Amino acid sequence: MADEKLPTRAQDFSEWYNQLVLKAQLADYAPVRGCMVVRPYGWALWENIQQALDRRFKATGHQNVAFPMLIPKSFIEKEKSHVEGFSPELAVVTIGGGEELTEPLVIRPTSETIIGHMWSKWIQSYRDLPVLMNQWNSVIRWELRTKLFLRTLEFYWQEGHTAHATREEAEAETRQMLDIYTDFAVNDAAIPVIPGKKSDAEKFAGAQTTYSIEAMMGDGKALQAGTSHFLGQNFAQAFEVRYLDQNGQLQHCWTTSWGLSTRFIGAIIMVHGDDQGLVLPPKLAPYQAVIVPIYKTDEEKAAVLGVARQMKAGLVQAEIRTVLDEREGFSPGWKFNDWEMRGVPVRIELGPKDVAKQAAVLARRDRPGREGKTSVAVVELVPAVVRLLDDIQKALHERALAFRQAHTRQAQSYDELKGAVENGFASAFWCGSADCEAAIKEETRATMRCIPLEGQTEQGICVKCGKPAVARAIFARAY
Amino acid sequence: MADEKLPTRAQDFSEWYNQLVLKAQLADYAPVRGCMVVRPYGWALWENIQQALDRRFKATGHQNVAFPMLIPKSFIEKEKSHVEGFSPELAVVTIGGGEELTEPLVIRPTSETIIGHMWSKWIQSYRDLPVLMNQWNSVIRWELRTKLFLRTLEFYWQEGHTAHATREEAEAETRQMLDIYTDFAVNDAAIPVIPGKKSDAEKFAGAQTTYSIEAMMGDGKALQAGTSHFLGQNFAQAFEVRYLDQNGQLQHCWTTSWGLSTRFIGAIIMVHGDDQGLVLPPKLAPYQAVIVPIYKTDEEKAAVLGVARQMKAGLVQAEIRTVLDEREGFSPGWKFNDWEMRGVPVRIELGPKDVAKQAAVLARRDRPGREGKTSVAVVELVPAVVRLLDDIQKALHERALAFRQAHTRQAQSYDELKGAVENGFASAFWCGSADCEAAIKEETRATMRCIPLEGQTEQGICVKCGKPAVARAIFARAY
Repeated sequence: MADEKLPTRAQDFSEWYNQLVLKAQLADYAPVRGCMVVRPYGWALWENIQQALDRRFKATGHQNVAFPMLIPKSFIEKEKSHVEGFSPELAVVTIGGGEELTEPLVIRPTSETIIGHMWSKWIQSYRDLPVLMNQWNSVIRWELRTKLFLRTLEFYWQEGHTAHATREEAEAETRQMLDIYTDFAVNDAAIPVIPGKKSDAEKFAGAQTTYSIEAMMGDGKALQAGTSHFLGQNFAQAFEVRYLDQNGQLQHCWTTSWGLSTRFIGAIIMVHGDDQGLVLPPKLAPYQAVIVPIYKTDEEKAAVLGVARQMKAGLVQAEIRTVLDEREGFSPGWKFNDWEMRGVPVRIELGPKDVAKQAAVLARRDRPGREGKTSVAVVELVPAVVRLLDDIQKALHERALAFRQAHTRQAQSYDELKGAVENGFASAFWCGSADCEAAIKEETRATMRCIPLEGQTEQGICVKCGKPAVARAIFARAY
Repeated sequence: MADEKLPTRAQDFSEWYNQLVLKAQLADYAPVRGCMVVRPYGWALWENIQQALDRRFKATGHQNVAFPMLIPKSFIEKEKSHVEGFSPELAVVTIGGGEELTEPLVIRPTSETIIGHMWSKWIQSYRDLPVLMNQWNSVIRWELRTKLFLRTLEFYWQEGHTAHATREEAEAETRQMLDIYTDFAVNDAAIPVIPGKKSDAEKFAGAQTTYSIEAMMGDGKALQAGTSHFLGQNFAQAFEVRYLDQNGQLQHCWTTSWGLSTRFIGAIIMVHGDDQGLVLPPKLAPYQAVIVPIYKTDEEKAAVLGVARQMKAGLVQAEIRTVLDEREGFSPGWKFNDWEMRGVPVRIELGPKDVAKQAAVLARRDRPGREGKTSVAVVELVPAVVRLLDDIQKALHERALAFRQAHTRQAQSYDELKGAVENGFASAFWCGSADCEAAIKEETRATMRCIPLEGQTEQGICVKCGKPAVARAIFARAY
């Protein structure tokens, strides 16, 4: 666990990440290439993400459902751009119950097609609309280059799917869900994100418009952390999802889909983590506080553990997720390092001297060394920890935002763009042509991440071709 | 929805069930044979089941994880009885990313094998034990005869997996989880169950001992509603799951697994449902109370809806899951039938006269007609609903228990057993031989459900062969 040191981020960011995921026991490699096992600590983090999102989905009227994982292969082929996008990535079941299947089945890479098929049965009239659904599941996409959490053959996510009577409603839904992802990222994960619109080259296979939230990782690269798609009538037409309107006319529905996956865990690691390991945002951390007892003699042990257990009970009662590290055979210093590596926001150190003073030492994970330590009276512990968690939550967001600002350049020229994407984002004018976008990608390995929703009214000339720009866009190398 | 009448249970229990699942919009048939779509109302019920169980799992120290759905086919073949049991039921992926796979992969039918493989990496020392894991997921078993919720190719469940240093600890875990299932069934689902031990013929493929909880459905048939397996060292040996004990000796672990699936929803339907439709136990019902407003004029509507919305707010604040049916174009009577069919425990009727009296009518779902109705003052509504939900929860359990008792016979002879299993359970002495068990199954279509954990000390002679009995067992036809 904490015995071997991580490489520093400056030495090798990618290797720092890979080793940290394993060391912190977030996940491990599965026997099938490109698949992962999410271990208890990683899954507890995902459950907190799930709850934070699910609460928001339900508050906006969405209901959870479960569509099956097996989809007839022919379904994928009904929507033209969908099949082009997903065909190369499919896992295909050809044998079931010992017999060759007459029609091969695919494991869902996403569920628009099977949901479209069922909606065509369920939706009859305008009275049935809107349909607002979400499901928590896993999907499979046969990726070649994989990395734990960031890109795995099977990954966990939620996929929301909605059907509406009008284009306007569907567009509003698409934007509402993007706002919900933004709110979650900023307020729960302490990750500043740029909500924006994808280029045609980067949009979802089958979407009319794709929006995403883009975050900057600790190495200056971008990570698409959630997407919301306006699907127009593409899937409604492919699957005959129609309703009788108030005038008795048959109309195609307008649909949306939106998803956020376990790759978000990768974002949390790479945005907040430091050379000591994970730094978890308090609102999502599996453990918000860890109590490390310090003692030498049996007498000290009895006294310290007595107080420590009372502390834990008090914190748990105040709904602070708390662990008391009573492991035998490990020194306090080793435990400090171990919990630091696992990113627990607040460490509570309690030794015989603290017990005598009826006090404890609080150490905040986001500030190393003495600077992050304060002494607090035992009677004041709970409110002090509550305040500290709140401070840390805010400080993490501020630090990440400052980092992103320091690593984002308004690129006036193509050379400036090239320089900027070496270690951050370039914000640059773009003419809107796929050719310029492709050339930039080819020459700089940076992709157009999005056209930010804010500040779309500026005017300028394309950083690549010099023609009038349609918008300012964010370019970056990306995960 | 409520427009076509269900067949009565007496007319055709099986068809009553099939139609009710569709009408209540719990689930629907998927395009792939034998798969189902769980619709919002069904999934909300499953989420409540999940929470009720997950709380208990966590309180007993279990942690959730996610092992991948794809397993190398060779893994399944490592444990002898496991492969015999599951090989005929596998879904096999032979193509991934457009290419034939060198080793075929199976979609998990259950996860003992892949978990064993990972444990062999993670578990080193007695300090790492016990390992207490659970996962919520879906699995696939290629069944031939399927029925919504009861037997589907893909089904949703939780599968718990634990590893221990000693046989005693693993056996205690197996029994603890059986107790948790029993407690959940009785106290949350209001379903009386018989916890007991399975015969060798009926046990899990790879288990040393299988325990189950068995429930009686409304037609007298049995349904296995949850299972807990003591796996001995079978999987630990097949996958080399070993630990260094305190003396530095390498030992194989002792493991368990236990599961409860969406078939439990089938049990809830068939235990409590009546000819009008579902009757949901209050603790698990997606909606515990429905408010149906009654009005004719616009003036009445305004007055009634005003009070109804206040009522809903008060109930929701008291954490009672409440829906206010404001749908236009449906009569109150139609709404009564619709919500009755959907099994909402308490209906609150509110018309202009009630508003004038500052009262409302409460109708309990488990008692039809006038007998189940009471009037309550609006100011007393919340405590009255809380009490009523509690009453209904208890009454449902009592009714189901009385039904089971009325349909269970102590069969002294084989003829009595034959008679008993026509519409219920036979409790009969059994010599322990697989031959007698097989003959009974062949001749009566009743299987040995379990040897109940209670009352194992009685003595008698086998109902089939007349030899000395090893135990009293429950025989029944089963789903």
